[in-house]
Amino acid sequence: MKRRDFLKSAATGAVAAAGASALAAPAIAQGKRELKLVTTWPKGFPGLGTGAQRFADSVTKATDGRITVKLYAAGELVPPFESFDAVSQGNADMYHAAEYYWQGKHKAFNFFTAVPFGLTANEMDAWINHAGGQELWDELSGQFNLKAFPCGNTGVQMGGWFNKEINSVEDLKGLKMRMPGLGGEVLRRLGATAVTLPGGEIFPSLQSGAIDATEWVGPWNDLAFGFYKVTKFYYHPGFHEPGSTLAVGINKDVWESFSASDQELIRACALAENNYSWAEFNAKNADSLDTLLTRHGVQLREFSDDVYEAFGKASQEVLEETAATDDISKRVYDSFAEFRRKSMGWSELADAGYMRKRKQVLSS
Amino acid sequence: MKRRDFLKSAATGAVAAAGASALAAPAIAQGKRELKLVTTWPKGFPGLGTGAQRFADSVTKATDGRITVKLYAAGELVPPFESFDAVSQGNADMYHAAEYYWQGKHKAFNFFTAVPFGLTANEMDAWINHAGGQELWDELSGQFNLKAFPCGNTGVQMGGWFNKEINSVEDLKGLKMRMPGLGGEVLRRLGATAVTLPGGEIFPSLQSGAIDATEWVGPWNDLAFGFYKVTKFYYHPGFHEPGSTLAVGINKDVWESFSASDQELIRACALAENNYSWAEFNAKNADSLDTLLTRHGVQLREFSDDVYEAFGKASQEVLEETAATDDISKRVYDSFAEFRRKSMGWSELADAGYMRKRKQVLSS
Repeated sequence: MKRRDFLKSAATGAVAAAGASALAAPAIAQGKRELKLVTTWPKGFPGLGTGAQRFADSVTKATDGRITVKLYAAGELVPPFESFDAVSQGNADMYHAAEYYWQGKHKAFNFFTAVPFGLTANEMDAWINHAGGQELWDELSGQFNLKAFPCGNTGVQMGGWFNKEINSVEDLKGLKMRMPGLGGEVLRRLGATAVTLPGGEIFPSLQSGAIDATEWVGPWNDLAFGFYKVTKFYYHPGFHEPGSTLAVGINKDVWESFSASDQELIRACALAENNYSWAEFNAKNADSLDTLLTRHGVQLREFSDDVYEAFGKASQEVLEETAATDDISKRVYDSFAEFRRKSMGWSELADAGYMRKRKQVLSS
Repeated sequence: MKRRDFLKSAATGAVAAAGASALAAPAIAQGKRELKLVTTWPKGFPGLGTGAQRFADSVTKATDGRITVKLYAAGELVPPFESFDAVSQGNADMYHAAEYYWQGKHKAFNFFTAVPFGLTANEMDAWINHAGGQELWDELSGQFNLKAFPCGNTGVQMGGWFNKEINSVEDLKGLKMRMPGLGGEVLRRLGATAVTLPGGEIFPSLQSGAIDATEWVGPWNDLAFGFYKVTKFYYHPGFHEPGSTLAVGINKDVWESFSASDQELIRACALAENNYSWAEFNAKNADSLDTLLTRHGVQLREFSDDVYEAFGKASQEVLEETAATDDISKRVYDSFAEFRRKSMGWSELADAGYMRKRKQVLSS
């Protein structure tokens, strides 16, 4: 029996059948593994940190501690944005993060979180699991010795908090707004100054006037940060992150050291959390929106058609430039864009069409 | 050690540590369990039967066969609609089905699959997992010695195939249409004759003229049944099943015989399949819609506002009568309706709002 086979066998509990009487307690201990999960989120951060913790606890519990996943909040083991290198190089076993944080490693990672005018949460799940997305993701992550799965979703993000009304594209000129990633690049092309700030620095920057506007996530997380105390204009819908997929990334050597059985268990725990997390954002956002509107006097504003057209035009340029990075970026974009085309036809008849007609009827 | 505790311990593999040398092979065999999963679906039926099989295989694989789930297609062990009694009474261990099939047992089961003008798939997940739905479901199922989880979703169903155009409520009068459940009751109130037919009988009935119209699921499943060969008018969006949740129901004694660890594993496999299935319906429906429109000359029609208003009014009556059945029906309906109210506010800003504006921009 090769050592790796033995470990696999021990890990499945079959060690007992393989001649348990010859094995003392330490042999059982050998079958146990502790995995380090680094995250980009502050400890217990609603939806993001708590979701990562649920995934860790789920694997630990479903294996009765045979695989124990120990979570490290941002900075506890490595700085948050070094999680990728830590796992890629084997200094940690897994990360929980959003793939677009790694766009400095490869631009194509953006497509596995969210891109401007991209896919909704449902569409991301459909593309990844049933229309070629996971295979492309495996190819991309594989270049960095990683294997990743969807493990949460924030849904459509809000357009952001502004200290003045945005009635035309002119109003964006000179605006200093916190928005990371490709969305920020879109704003820059429309004359705004887009800045990237970690979560904890946003509120003081908005309060001091260092920035004029910010997006963060949605009502649940935005309420927690208290942006309504500084400004009341809350815009929708966000164009920049229509269904931000969270991900668990696993060191590929670690992944391949697991039996097929344990791989299935980890995959199931990740997808279960993907489902549970997206449902949680929907439920909490619905509640928190009620609170913002009825208790804090927040004023909702919808981006005008003109402004949205301008977002759309600049977004298309940014996506095409991202696709032009290299061969795999092009293939990822083509697959993504083709799925978006088909899915828009279907959702117009299904989800979008139904929600529109339900609203007409129930509010009449 | 009580026998039940022993079984729990054996089932977690901890038997080895508990003194494996004293236990021979049969003791290990005792730790293995084979569970009978009965289903309401024909063998391998796309999305429904295949989804149930994926769930069964996932539990089997994730436990390396320690818990082996053996699937029985409709009629293999019991007739499909006797699955509920079989599992409730312990003649089978689990079912995979849609809860509204049990409305003869209790009307409130309708709310855990789909009701007219009810929740979308995302909203169902949010209500069940994060807004009190699961607790009410546990209370309802508990009365029948069952524990159930979401385990799949078809998404918004299409409005159906009609042999003539439906331009007004008048056109529904006398129409003989296949539509089961509360949706069928709505049609009856508008003067149609609603009939219930099992899947396999729908096509011949439509072809012979025994029925004038039918709904089934969506483009993926409808294409497979070939309804486009008989009629070309394909209506959207369906009012009757806006996000049909599929479920796995487990005999409560069986459920409670599992360790907390195995319960977590089964829960994770069910929720993972819930995510994977809903994504599959979205992907396949998008593809199949393309095929129906471009290769089979299907003509899409949207229900007019007048017709939808009439569906809405009758649906509200039917839901309120269902809620009036008894105390638990009332509490389920109140919880469901309150969540729908909040969620509609949120989705209008988020998913519905974004999809509308994305369509405007990308098709301009």
